[in-house]
Amino acid sequence: MALALSLGRRGQGITWPNPAVGCVVVQGGCIVGRGWTAPGGRPHAETQALAQAGEAARGADVYVTLEPCAHHGQTPPCAQALIDAGVGRVVVAVVDSDARVAGRGIEMLRAAGIAVHVGVCEAEARRDHAGFFTRVGQGRPALTLKLAQSFDGRIATASGESQWITGPGARRMVHAMRARHDAVMVGAGTARVDNPSLTVRDLGIARQPARVVVSRRLDIPLTCQLAQTAGEVPVILCHGADAPPALVEAWGGMGATTLTCRSEGRHLDLSDVMAQLGQHGLTRVFSEGGSAMAASLLQADLVDDLVGFTAGLTIGAEGLPGLGALGLGRLAQAPRFDLAQVRAVGPDVMHHWRRAR
Amino acid sequence: MALALSLGRRGQGITWPNPAVGCVVVQGGCIVGRGWTAPGGRPHAETQALAQAGEAARGADVYVTLEPCAHHGQTPPCAQALIDAGVGRVVVAVVDSDARVAGRGIEMLRAAGIAVHVGVCEAEARRDHAGFFTRVGQGRPALTLKLAQSFDGRIATASGESQWITGPGARRMVHAMRARHDAVMVGAGTARVDNPSLTVRDLGIARQPARVVVSRRLDIPLTCQLAQTAGEVPVILCHGADAPPALVEAWGGMGATTLTCRSEGRHLDLSDVMAQLGQHGLTRVFSEGGSAMAASLLQADLVDDLVGFTAGLTIGAEGLPGLGALGLGRLAQAPRFDLAQVRAVGPDVMHHWRRAR
Repeated sequence: MALALSLGRRGQGITWPNPAVGCVVVQGGCIVGRGWTAPGGRPHAETQALAQAGEAARGADVYVTLEPCAHHGQTPPCAQALIDAGVGRVVVAVVDSDARVAGRGIEMLRAAGIAVHVGVCEAEARRDHAGFFTRVGQGRPALTLKLAQSFDGRIATASGESQWITGPGARRMVHAMRARHDAVMVGAGTARVDNPSLTVRDLGIARQPARVVVSRRLDIPLTCQLAQTAGEVPVILCHGADAPPALVEAWGGMGATTLTCRSEGRHLDLSDVMAQLGQHGLTRVFSEGGSAMAASLLQADLVDDLVGFTAGLTIGAEGLPGLGALGLGRLAQAPRFDLAQVRAVGPDVMHHWRRAR
Repeated sequence: MALALSLGRRGQGITWPNPAVGCVVVQGGCIVGRGWTAPGGRPHAETQALAQAGEAARGADVYVTLEPCAHHGQTPPCAQALIDAGVGRVVVAVVDSDARVAGRGIEMLRAAGIAVHVGVCEAEARRDHAGFFTRVGQGRPALTLKLAQSFDGRIATASGESQWITGPGARRMVHAMRARHDAVMVGAGTARVDNPSLTVRDLGIARQPARVVVSRRLDIPLTCQLAQTAGEVPVILCHGADAPPALVEAWGGMGATTLTCRSEGRHLDLSDVMAQLGQHGLTRVFSEGGSAMAASLLQADLVDDLVGFTAGLTIGAEGLPGLGALGLGRLAQAPRFDLAQVRAVGPDVMHHWRRAR
């Protein structure tokens, strides 16, 4: 199952709206088939692993990181494919919470006389499929918030100088993290000030994550990198109902997808932004700020994973904070996260936290 | 030598102004003597190890983390003691930079026909004796600056609530760090607002580090914990020439040591504060803030070690920063540190950095 999980993770960021599943077929102690969800979400992991196994699938043990599907979508159900291949036993990491499956895949297999074991490496599988489960359960993608800060929590000097606080190793790791998400998201301020391309560079990936910009009034120059490259790598603009229609149209003309989201005073309601992104099919979103949007995401309790990079330099209190105001009354109200991992990355420290339960 | 270093570290915080040395005597593959500098700085490590070895010291190999002393101080020179014991070989981690020794200990041994090897585990020994070397070389103690912060670099909410950001494991580790320094140092603001005792608790230590408060005008209530306990655990007050003489006298009457330091505008000149502390005999100082003093120490380039604790909670930009303004013009001017260690401590992250070379 560890191998199946690792295979499944190869699809993270490129199978949305489908889950990135891994599957291993074992016959007589030998691996005879390996599969993972293909880019775009099809073919499914089981289909590919069974095809690789061929006749050897008969009587084999099959390890799959998510319950095989039971419904006819654009592909026939994987549960049926497993039955047709005559496999001997199926080990499932976690039950699919999609209403169209929800245990029916397991039922189909059992009804066909196949032994099914459920719950092997379940916690790990739940984490790997968190984007899929969050979208199915809450209608929004899972969200990772990343901040690269100085020792004292600053992302730039008072004059805005920020290149570079962290080293090349940390920046490369950020690109790898982008690649494992369906989309990279920033606020309008970051898009204006930094003019980023938000693409994954130097990792040789074939499929770039989408770029999401949150801007109520679409006040971002059409000459920016994101607009200029919207034809090559998807750009999704989340704007308010009061955004100038001419701008919405112009961005559409550049190839961008525009989503009209609910406003809350002067800002977009980020819960609605996330819901719209979920409806669009996104399951894993990686946000890199800026500080106002990061604070709003935390206030709206939308942050599932928090990733910090800390560099060994101090900028001081007049530097720009990585996180805007949260309006906390008491310390007990502070959003809390549990440490998942901490390690050195080149000269910097990477710390990864998950929403506290 | 690794054992000798580890023995030597037992004395850190309690041997000042003397270095905390470790010594191991090995005869025929067996450890026959172990010693480390006793509290207060005497007897020296070599004396104790040789006493433990007795007759077995004859012809033995001796490992010592600092060059044996050559001068008659309050104790006879250790180099002579090693010669008198008839040891066969002495392995020295690092040469003593004290002008009274500076290679003369090694010369004495060699002149007596004893083989001496120098430089084994030298880098580690230099770190262990950093306080001693900094005092001898620069006339000031080595300084560790500690900050316990939220994920976003805050030490309290806007209203000043700070208990607790980090967990009990991190707080216990801070007490252990205090215990390995000669003194704990805070600014007047921290002394006033937090009314700390700055003692080491729950670790069963016999000798508390001194408490240093930096306050130009001595505007700290005499009812505070530090004043009330000055008779039990040393308190050192660094004040300006313009501090009210009645207050200087009152603190003296409570049992505190008062040091008159140079002022620089409205603040004390921290380089002079550190020089005065060095003259007083301190070799290792642990500073826990507040944010203004932390910034001033960094600006004056007095921070040798930087220790951060990062908790998995976010406070937001209106929270109190751990570090005050540094007045940086360019990012390239930011004080930089090299990562020495990073690890999880309970639910928090501890990261230790050293002055970049």
